[in-house]
Amino acid sequence: MKQLVRVQNFCVSRDGYGAGEGQTLERPFGNVDPGRLVSWAGATAHWPNRTDPGGTLGLDDYFTRDFSNNIGAEIMGRNKFGPQRGPWENHDWEGWWGEEPPFHTPVFVLTHHERPSITLGETTFHFLDASPKDALARAFEAAEGKDVRIGGGVATVREFLAADLIDSLHVAVSPLDIGAGERLWESPEALTDRFHLEKVPSPGSDVVHHLLWRK
Amino acid sequence: MKQLVRVQNFCVSRDGYGAGEGQTLERPFGNVDPGRLVSWAGATAHWPNRTDPGGTLGLDDYFTRDFSNNIGAEIMGRNKFGPQRGPWENHDWEGWWGEEPPFHTPVFVLTHHERPSITLGETTFHFLDASPKDALARAFEAAEGKDVRIGGGVATVREFLAADLIDSLHVAVSPLDIGAGERLWESPEALTDRFHLEKVPSPGSDVVHHLLWRK
Repeated sequence: MKQLVRVQNFCVSRDGYGAGEGQTLERPFGNVDPGRLVSWAGATAHWPNRTDPGGTLGLDDYFTRDFSNNIGAEIMGRNKFGPQRGPWENHDWEGWWGEEPPFHTPVFVLTHHERPSITLGETTFHFLDASPKDALARAFEAAEGKDVRIGGGVATVREFLAADLIDSLHVAVSPLDIGAGERLWESPEALTDRFHLEKVPSPGSDVVHHLLWRK
Repeated sequence: MKQLVRVQNFCVSRDGYGAGEGQTLERPFGNVDPGRLVSWAGATAHWPNRTDPGGTLGLDDYFTRDFSNNIGAEIMGRNKFGPQRGPWENHDWEGWWGEEPPFHTPVFVLTHHERPSITLGETTFHFLDASPKDALARAFEAAEGKDVRIGGGVATVREFLAADLIDSLHVAVSPLDIGAGERLWESPEALTDRFHLEKVPSPGSDVVHHLLWRK
């Protein structure tokens, strides 16, 4: 099977926002509590950040365990990697995730300000000043035949959608309105000219899983 | 995370049958056309037997791609391996699946009539005269930290359920009635004393995915 470009477990509000306004070091999702967007995932057995045993093994868990299933590399935007803007003042910042980030593959961070790669646990961050197409070529090579996940944030997913480089998306829509910030879509139907769309209400939480794949 | 014992992509009729009566070499599911039970899976991009490109990437595909996700070994009953009964007349029979079976792991075949192991492609079949508990200990060891799939048929799943050795089940229920043969359950509610149950209608096919996991 050919290598796919996948968006997985991308969490947005009912009105389509993946983050609020005003990202800071303390608030990576700006003026939105990310817990309200990701609580469905935090309850599952395979949530990557889970530290205690237990958790559900229902439909929501199929999505959290698919997050890493056959993924060989991730591409993320700089704003997912950190709150800094412009040239790096220093290289002390190594991401939000501590010594064992939940990616466990090469990760390509798109930025106009390149810097040396960082290895933390099983994850290596590479910093690339490249177009989506060129970044994807690098990620496909690094993935060694496995799929590539487009990790976000919103602007990065939109950029890859605009370049028509995405094969499939899983977007979990939570029943809250955010109103301003980083918006993935006004409505998922905006993508149905190019993508199939299935909406699957979770029996175990309050999200509706949206599954899209290229026509 | 601890190793799980999982039933995956197990297909039954609305009245709970996984196979009809009268299994033969030509009819591994007896007097039932297995196409009517598994067509939902055959339409998906990650169906293991798919030979042409294409296929859907919606909810049904999450289940076909989870079939092998983090699975390190399978346990199956002898009747899944072949139509013979009693002592092996010879060792010519090597399963239904040809030179590259879709398991790609060690497979433990439960039988009172042991025979030498067979390696076909990435799959090795071992033949064990053992209790479910002892077979599971062997499979856990072979799985090297990954999960163990209970592959069926119906009698084998029921035996492992009776021994309370199963952590989770995915059962795809198709809208047809079979009436006689190998029956998994009269109703999935028969398991809800010990298992959580979520029923998820597929938006892309006519099955209802039943997800059960231990309370």
